[in-house]
Amino acid sequence: MKLYRIVSFSALLLSQAVGAQVSDSVMIRRIYDMELENGQCYDHLRRLCKETPGRLSGSENAERSVNLTRTMLEKMNLDTAWLQECMVTHWERGDKEMLKVIGKDDYKNVSFQITALGGSVGTPAGGITAGVVMVDSLAQLKKLGTEKLKGKIVFFNRPMDPKHIDTFHAYGSCADQRVWGADEACKYGAVGVIVRSMGYENDPFAHTGVMIYKTDTMIPAGAISPVDADKLAEMLKKQPDLQLHLELSCRSFPDVLSHNVIGEIRGTEHPEEIIVIGGHLDSWDTGEGAQDDGAGVVQSMEVLYLFRQLGIRPKRTIRCVLFMNEENGSKGAKQYALDAKNKGEKHIVAIESDRGGLAPRGFSVEGENGIDKVCMKQLQQWKHLFIPYMVHIFEYGGSGVDVSKLKDQGTALLGFIPDPQRYFDMHHTANDTFENVNKRELELGSATIAALVYLFSEYGVINPQ
Amino acid sequence: MKLYRIVSFSALLLSQAVGAQVSDSVMIRRIYDMELENGQCYDHLRRLCKETPGRLSGSENAERSVNLTRTMLEKMNLDTAWLQECMVTHWERGDKEMLKVIGKDDYKNVSFQITALGGSVGTPAGGITAGVVMVDSLAQLKKLGTEKLKGKIVFFNRPMDPKHIDTFHAYGSCADQRVWGADEACKYGAVGVIVRSMGYENDPFAHTGVMIYKTDTMIPAGAISPVDADKLAEMLKKQPDLQLHLELSCRSFPDVLSHNVIGEIRGTEHPEEIIVIGGHLDSWDTGEGAQDDGAGVVQSMEVLYLFRQLGIRPKRTIRCVLFMNEENGSKGAKQYALDAKNKGEKHIVAIESDRGGLAPRGFSVEGENGIDKVCMKQLQQWKHLFIPYMVHIFEYGGSGVDVSKLKDQGTALLGFIPDPQRYFDMHHTANDTFENVNKRELELGSATIAALVYLFSEYGVINPQ
Repeated sequence: MKLYRIVSFSALLLSQAVGAQVSDSVMIRRIYDMELENGQCYDHLRRLCKETPGRLSGSENAERSVNLTRTMLEKMNLDTAWLQECMVTHWERGDKEMLKVIGKDDYKNVSFQITALGGSVGTPAGGITAGVVMVDSLAQLKKLGTEKLKGKIVFFNRPMDPKHIDTFHAYGSCADQRVWGADEACKYGAVGVIVRSMGYENDPFAHTGVMIYKTDTMIPAGAISPVDADKLAEMLKKQPDLQLHLELSCRSFPDVLSHNVIGEIRGTEHPEEIIVIGGHLDSWDTGEGAQDDGAGVVQSMEVLYLFRQLGIRPKRTIRCVLFMNEENGSKGAKQYALDAKNKGEKHIVAIESDRGGLAPRGFSVEGENGIDKVCMKQLQQWKHLFIPYMVHIFEYGGSGVDVSKLKDQGTALLGFIPDPQRYFDMHHTANDTFENVNKRELELGSATIAALVYLFSEYGVINPQ
Repeated sequence: MKLYRIVSFSALLLSQAVGAQVSDSVMIRRIYDMELENGQCYDHLRRLCKETPGRLSGSENAERSVNLTRTMLEKMNLDTAWLQECMVTHWERGDKEMLKVIGKDDYKNVSFQITALGGSVGTPAGGITAGVVMVDSLAQLKKLGTEKLKGKIVFFNRPMDPKHIDTFHAYGSCADQRVWGADEACKYGAVGVIVRSMGYENDPFAHTGVMIYKTDTMIPAGAISPVDADKLAEMLKKQPDLQLHLELSCRSFPDVLSHNVIGEIRGTEHPEEIIVIGGHLDSWDTGEGAQDDGAGVVQSMEVLYLFRQLGIRPKRTIRCVLFMNEENGSKGAKQYALDAKNKGEKHIVAIESDRGGLAPRGFSVEGENGIDKVCMKQLQQWKHLFIPYMVHIFEYGGSGVDVSKLKDQGTALLGFIPDPQRYFDMHHTANDTFENVNKRELELGSATIAALVYLFSEYGVINPQ
């Protein structure tokens, strides 16, 4: 209670102060101070992770997280908070996941933890047993052909390249195995797919993630940890004819109704110009969805909280959007973009936080018809305002899966860039828990995003002088 | 074995390649690649932490770490590796640390984990029991005076200010309580001191650290966790007359012989110009000394390893110095600087890594008679070489406790700056373990330091054109 009173009093003082014009640097300092002293995003993240872990689209916890975050937004005394309906993917893991080695001698009773890839079909009841062919690329499948692959389980084992400084580049250069591996392998008669998880070499966790079938021929696919992948590769070197027994009980269901959660503070001068800040509410079912993307969810809500606490009345409308179904369909984002277009809404900027709640380093920007360049000019002019907060990077690059659906609406699309080094230790695994998010890192990210949203709310997106 | 052969072969190829002149950016890329693919600093850190945890000066583990790191350096096929004798502080915690609340009702049987501050005297056998006066500054003691403080335990409870973006600034603005609290409080007749640990508010660990007596009147001092400090403050609000029972068995012994550990690759063109890269081998006894400063130790050794693996023959001499006794006396560093002066050695640059093995962000520089400005000009010219590695900060500021002892020898002094947000979650606590160091973050730090050392070895410290 005491804390609450202090916050309110301080907010009162500040809201009086902002009646007078204050410089951008002063306002940004206030945003960081408020967040670091009285931020609530860390507590929000705790509740989101502990009360609604594993918020996979279509699950009970996903629906509970809709209600939880809606309530959190409603408590902020915004101009509006509402739910937007969307039909979303519904896939369930089921209760059986097993991968056993059937080999000689030492390899008789070895089994590995496996996690089904999202979207995969299950195996027939009782599982499948087959020999294994290890490959390191999709291209290699063609060379091997039906002769070598028919009836086999294909083991994709290309590792993340540690030499990429940005771990997302290493991820990007391996993701094809996970997404398209099964779809390609089944063309040559393979009966199942095992993928090396996208983590670094000493990572003991199996990482799930989306996979896609383009045809009606569907074979089951799962991932094992990098540590286990190295073990399996070693086994195959010694016993090339060993077999694997794979059992998965996952399956897809018809799409179900779910919701994006939205909160808004309307602009005082240009309410028709909308600035979106968002993350995705759904997560994989293997962990608590803390870094991916609980962090982005609570940071997006925190922007509105900070504006309210500081008594900032933005000139342009600020909208927090918590997208449903980013992980396996992006149907929430597609619905949002479609509705925006149908209503003739004008989204000038959309920022996504979906790379974890690590220490903030900057923003990337993209957009069509030159809006990226206009926006970059602004960012370069504002860069000096962020240097005191150890935020340095303003570059061209991808924004986020959700906001990118607004690309053809003339929107400048930005991605928040936190430090990328530890992200893939947690991504899509049982290790993605609240305890693995650092309070200060999360808060600094919230403040950094709020500071940038503040600048856009003051100046819009225009060619700077 | 396989890995070893790959490394050697790749080193051979590269050492042939460097016969030809390569650009700085190409060489720096090779340094990062080698480190991220074949670095050994993480394995070195595991051994240092697990085989010789708690390397407090004068302890058995400190001496074992001298031998361990000397052996590691000797395996690198350097030009020289040697031990430098130094007399160091010897203080021991003993086996008894107890802090009990003697209060009414709910506070009857409460006790807190306490850690003696390094250098503190113990309590008399059986401990002391006294009332408590809570203060938030040294200045407040004077106002309270002997009347209020005589016979009491003073509880310093000023918290780290979360608003500082650089956590070292927050640390710096609280350290006086820990270092001088007991020395000041005893002037007014206090019988003991309890200090709030220097961590953030939700930190459950007690942090030790050095304290200093200026006079012969010595009272015992210990630290409790920030979480417990808040609890104690709350108790005092409700029962201002509660008492504390404090028992500490720590004591000081005469200085003992120990060693700095040194390894060197001699320069081919200017062997007389020495570039030092160092960290401190000793640590507090409460944890494994992983971030503080096992990280700096293994990164300093790694610079020499990388030069050898890549076949780089530096123009100037590169010396790795693992200082003993940084935590409670800096006597290793003082001995090193004294010997350097006596031998007439010319140290052009000394870089210290003693802020943890977190993701690299830059370097700070200091130095006398304008050498800092000369060096800063160089750093600014080189900055673009580091941007691809997400290293942006080149600023004036403190270097490190050890290398700063070379200040009056015309040396440019640099401090490696890793991301500071998580450091004080571990600093001087039982939480400072190998498991809390991230492999990639540590390796990126090693490569960043090696890259800068490479540039200094090529160009020296001169006013750039």
